[in-house]
Amino acid sequence: MLTQPEAYYDQATFDRIKKVADQLETPVVVFDTATFTSQLDQLIKSFPYAKTYYAVKANPAPELLAILRDRDCNFDVASRYELDKVMEMGVGGDRISFGNTIKKSRDISYFFEKGVSLYATDSEADLRNIAKFAPGSRVFVRILTEGSQTADWPLSRKFGCHVDMALDLCIMARDLGLVPYGISFHVGSQQRDIGAWDSAIAKVKGIFERLKEEDGIKLQMLNLGGGFPANYVSRTNTLEVYAQEITRYLEEDFGDDMPKIILEPGRSLAANAGILVSEVVLVSRKNRTGLHRWVYTDIGKFGGFIETLDEAIKYPLYVEKDGECEGVIIAGPTCDSADILYEQYKYELPLSLAEGDRLYWFSTGAYTTTYSAIEFNGFPPLKTICI
Amino acid sequence: MLTQPEAYYDQATFDRIKKVADQLETPVVVFDTATFTSQLDQLIKSFPYAKTYYAVKANPAPELLAILRDRDCNFDVASRYELDKVMEMGVGGDRISFGNTIKKSRDISYFFEKGVSLYATDSEADLRNIAKFAPGSRVFVRILTEGSQTADWPLSRKFGCHVDMALDLCIMARDLGLVPYGISFHVGSQQRDIGAWDSAIAKVKGIFERLKEEDGIKLQMLNLGGGFPANYVSRTNTLEVYAQEITRYLEEDFGDDMPKIILEPGRSLAANAGILVSEVVLVSRKNRTGLHRWVYTDIGKFGGFIETLDEAIKYPLYVEKDGECEGVIIAGPTCDSADILYEQYKYELPLSLAEGDRLYWFSTGAYTTTYSAIEFNGFPPLKTICI
Repeated sequence: MLTQPEAYYDQATFDRIKKVADQLETPVVVFDTATFTSQLDQLIKSFPYAKTYYAVKANPAPELLAILRDRDCNFDVASRYELDKVMEMGVGGDRISFGNTIKKSRDISYFFEKGVSLYATDSEADLRNIAKFAPGSRVFVRILTEGSQTADWPLSRKFGCHVDMALDLCIMARDLGLVPYGISFHVGSQQRDIGAWDSAIAKVKGIFERLKEEDGIKLQMLNLGGGFPANYVSRTNTLEVYAQEITRYLEEDFGDDMPKIILEPGRSLAANAGILVSEVVLVSRKNRTGLHRWVYTDIGKFGGFIETLDEAIKYPLYVEKDGECEGVIIAGPTCDSADILYEQYKYELPLSLAEGDRLYWFSTGAYTTTYSAIEFNGFPPLKTICI
Repeated sequence: MLTQPEAYYDQATFDRIKKVADQLETPVVVFDTATFTSQLDQLIKSFPYAKTYYAVKANPAPELLAILRDRDCNFDVASRYELDKVMEMGVGGDRISFGNTIKKSRDISYFFEKGVSLYATDSEADLRNIAKFAPGSRVFVRILTEGSQTADWPLSRKFGCHVDMALDLCIMARDLGLVPYGISFHVGSQQRDIGAWDSAIAKVKGIFERLKEEDGIKLQMLNLGGGFPANYVSRTNTLEVYAQEITRYLEEDFGDDMPKIILEPGRSLAANAGILVSEVVLVSRKNRTGLHRWVYTDIGKFGGFIETLDEAIKYPLYVEKDGECEGVIIAGPTCDSADILYEQYKYELPLSLAEGDRLYWFSTGAYTTTYSAIEFNGFPPLKTICI
């Protein structure tokens, strides 16, 4: 069955986005700030006790940063370049967390000079650098979690450390004159199993207790990371359900001794607000009796759709045509043969689909534009229009 | 064993590149035009009977395009943006092939207006567009080939059609007033099995004969594509050996009735001429007894090393330290957990490796800079310096 807009957007929103999109050359992302704002308000309402640190990497458009700034949100920043971008909007260092555990010493200095006093870490080498170049700062230790099997864009073992090392790092932080402030985890982006938070929170509770009892260290903060879902083809529970369940896990584990809670949403705020519009370049079959049509379009894996790697993220796809449909293979416009978007998963598209028809890719407001290649096969980077 | 520069570069070349690199902030690619020129001269000498169409997508730096222009080479172009770039160098449309089989009608018009009269195709829809928007042009039909198992960056079924359809397309080209000019194939980039050309050439010979005998169509050209190797960790035969063998296959199949031969080298010309220099950001272990160190560096998968996907391309890696070595996991600087360069394949690096040390990645002059993301996690695109 063809995707219908009303399953993802209210009619007025879709019409507003489409009207702008249809004036523009493809490929382009039209980003609806009203949708972003309402997603943000919903998050704040669902987690009234938590502080939001927006994951700037999901979409660093100045229009979004301004909305977050004006709603007193905070910012989870991955590099000094993102720091500059956020501070140019008039945000102070006290509202920023350096959330990347991989940082150069000179970048730590740079953040410290700008007034940032909250740092993620997961290794001894990084912690020693923080102590040296951002003395006295608050640090939170990122631990490894399970849950990769149920996240659409799972996390690897790249980030986080085991519990034994997290304990060591908290003690070492204190001994180095830093504030052992809390623990963070990330259950994987687009995590569809809410239970993943349950086991992670229980693990953190264990760390809080051991540090308190054995070392006299009282951690103050629990950073739940991101992982809240966007509306892709694989549907998930609503944010309200996530919030209810996670709140229940927190109450069960921490009761009256609740730490400060931090969230780092990115995808769940930005994705649904964007619609990427591309054009069909060519429809072909490979031989006289080819079973599947190949649909080539002017957006590709390296032009912004990097998260189609291994067909991880499946964006809802709408076309204005209807009639009989057939499963197709969808590929990008470059000469790179790896630039196939979906081959195993078959989108059903109308037999009447032809060159020049427009494809509307829903929920493409996060992790698209900034990731597009600078001039892959000569193609310019993907553009965004904010409305 | 640690990679040594002399296995890949003569001493003077390496010293020249390193001297420049060591003045620059990382990450950066230093591209040695003298190496590129000598690779080009070697190719021309090895295939004296062939015309070279440089695959611009491999590295479109103006310095390289100028060298190719001055040596009377031709250009295999993937998009209108590459076309503009090449023509700005003063190259005429008669030296350009539109080698991408996925093209918009308006792009075909654009090429035709610029004097381009040679087009790749592999589908009926595309062929009809060429007939309409570039009437009278020469077309060559790209066929599917095997050989994916032995190419380091294999080609998928995205490009090319089966033999039955190739025959149909040549006949249709004639009937649409185009010149059915030839056949092309691509054995896969970094193809290490020279035999892959043998079976592909034999397949083409069959097409030539059937069209001549059954349809009175005399094709004139055979496009051998690219696939010639660069010097990565997996060593290959020399270009001379490739040339000798491929020449023998051609003579066996075509004898005195040799068609015009076209080559589309990209990687084999540009890769070896570049050295990417990055810096170690952090070295860490994941727990008290972690077996492998993680080496984080300031070049990542989405910052230019896209071909490390699935660890496909393994660049030779040199560091100035020596002493006892150990296998490490190497990852990029972003907060994306997919940004791991090598985890299965363990580069052996010195135990003394530390933050701030420089990593010299050899043979990184092709398929790196243009592919880097515009601002992934805020990081600026990879820079190139041509010397």
